[in-house]
Amino acid sequence: MEEVRNQQVILKDYVNGLPKESDMLLKTSSTILLKLPKGSNGVLVKNLYLSCDPYLCCLMSKSQVSHLESFTPGSPIAGLGVAKVVDSGHSNFKKGDLVWGWTGWEEYTIITAPDALFKIQHTDVPLSYYIGILGVHGMTAYYGFHEICAPKKGEYVFVSAASGAVGQLVGQFAKLTGCYVVGTAGTNKKVELLKNKFGFDEAFNYKDEQDIDEALKRYFPEGIDIYFENVGGKMLDAVLLNMKTNGRISVCGMISQYNLNEEEGVRNLSHIIMKRLHMKGFIVGDHFNLYPKYMEMVIPLIKEEKICYIEDIGEGLESAPAALLGLFSGKNVGKQVVVVAHE
Amino acid sequence: MEEVRNQQVILKDYVNGLPKESDMLLKTSSTILLKLPKGSNGVLVKNLYLSCDPYLCCLMSKSQVSHLESFTPGSPIAGLGVAKVVDSGHSNFKKGDLVWGWTGWEEYTIITAPDALFKIQHTDVPLSYYIGILGVHGMTAYYGFHEICAPKKGEYVFVSAASGAVGQLVGQFAKLTGCYVVGTAGTNKKVELLKNKFGFDEAFNYKDEQDIDEALKRYFPEGIDIYFENVGGKMLDAVLLNMKTNGRISVCGMISQYNLNEEEGVRNLSHIIMKRLHMKGFIVGDHFNLYPKYMEMVIPLIKEEKICYIEDIGEGLESAPAALLGLFSGKNVGKQVVVVAHE
Repeated sequence: MEEVRNQQVILKDYVNGLPKESDMLLKTSSTILLKLPKGSNGVLVKNLYLSCDPYLCCLMSKSQVSHLESFTPGSPIAGLGVAKVVDSGHSNFKKGDLVWGWTGWEEYTIITAPDALFKIQHTDVPLSYYIGILGVHGMTAYYGFHEICAPKKGEYVFVSAASGAVGQLVGQFAKLTGCYVVGTAGTNKKVELLKNKFGFDEAFNYKDEQDIDEALKRYFPEGIDIYFENVGGKMLDAVLLNMKTNGRISVCGMISQYNLNEEEGVRNLSHIIMKRLHMKGFIVGDHFNLYPKYMEMVIPLIKEEKICYIEDIGEGLESAPAALLGLFSGKNVGKQVVVVAHE
Repeated sequence: MEEVRNQQVILKDYVNGLPKESDMLLKTSSTILLKLPKGSNGVLVKNLYLSCDPYLCCLMSKSQVSHLESFTPGSPIAGLGVAKVVDSGHSNFKKGDLVWGWTGWEEYTIITAPDALFKIQHTDVPLSYYIGILGVHGMTAYYGFHEICAPKKGEYVFVSAASGAVGQLVGQFAKLTGCYVVGTAGTNKKVELLKNKFGFDEAFNYKDEQDIDEALKRYFPEGIDIYFENVGGKMLDAVLLNMKTNGRISVCGMISQYNLNEEEGVRNLSHIIMKRLHMKGFIVGDHFNLYPKYMEMVIPLIKEEKICYIEDIGEGLESAPAALLGLFSGKNVGKQVVVVAHE
């Protein structure tokens, strides 16, 4: 029976606030048998790609508000990944199947509840897309923008964290719908990308703006119909001042507020009343009944190159902790992915 | 042509923050002809009841975010009222008609755009109800609770400012729907009213609570499905911590935040995401297409005494400024009304 190395990214201990690289340990000494224990109805997978997402850092705290459980100190952290089935005790999966879903930050993982995995059907697109545009992030952009905001042609759309995994898609879905789209990001390189690659009508670097309210008034003299919220805090406060009557805010994330001991206060909520705003939070996992509908829409867009999807790919599990934390300093350009193995 | 006294409540000058009684002047020297100018297609009304509402104080500031225009210094302030037509230049109205709608804080008003007035059909209920349960406040409770929150039997409902014009109705609509309802108010007398008159399951005086979060956890050990928001600020912050998954927040008002130079920061907005909350602001004036439907529901409830509606009635226009400001110190018990004339 073949036993192989199984490098892992271990959470050392619960973290308060934003984790540091030293809170994670790359453990190189673990090994794993490439065979499921007898009687298991799980699957053993070889991890190929891991998705770096801000909320994973929340799960390193003992008390956190996510719908997901906190990670366990001493064990590998986990997240979304693309993987290949090595051994299966479940009738839906067989050796060689490509899957995506929740997996460990390690080379091999035994997934004990494989019903939550998605089998990958289309392999003529980059496999890493399944932890991005063809997975949770794509569905997040689709559900949050199309289903919550019900956009109409000609409406004004603002996207924060616009070059990120979800934001870049929201902007492009908005353009395909005939909306006017402005995005914001935290580096000039990202701003260029928004305008030149993703086709946003305008984009700005929020770090260059003394006053976000003033910037929004410049970019949206008539106000904002739809705000796709990834950021929270001061950005939301400025957006509230600039929403139009009957505006919609899809609350997808509040990255500026994660890992703060106390969230920033948002002061302009009374605009919700006067402007009749609709604000809706969502967890995309509730809405995967719409996944086939979404795939039907997005696969042709990818194949016909009507949509552009940019990834920032880190090589090797050893690069994963830095790649994850880089999300908070805005280092990544596009969706942050780590390659654990190419096949 | 008969000329009569026309006492008026005049706004002296724009106000910053919460107005004081001295910002309003009772002008006793004005007079008015009891006949419309020739060619007018307005109506001249004798005001009977005026409605005291918190938002009127916002309209005393020059810059304010309401959808209504600020009052004009030197002129009478205005608000909702019940009135009797004295002279009409409009084909829909004739002398003697009872109407409700936007009118001046004065004895007689010329309403130049009478299309916005509602003619009173049922006169076998107290006329003052038309600036309350049978008018904007009733519609507010109905729309905000039934249409926005789509309550289901057995759900947990929390109402702030619960003994006010709107809150007392929301609580009773919730009970009639089979919900569990807790209300909060700022005096023990109001709390008693909530429990003994309006049939709330529980009620508490928020001023007696050191920690609103802790109080809500006591009253809602399983969390809150529906929050009818009248208050904003710290109350909203504590409620966000206690909302259940898929909870709904109907944002009707934020009285604690009016007339503050800077609104209090609300820090727990990230709960909107994890709990998939739906938050919706509304202005009831947008939804009067539903007024007949509402009247059909509420008139029998009043006649069969299945609903109880409490008013706090001030006598005479001279009592109006104090009655209005009393809303902010919690003086009123029930809907605050001022009688200008009995007929």
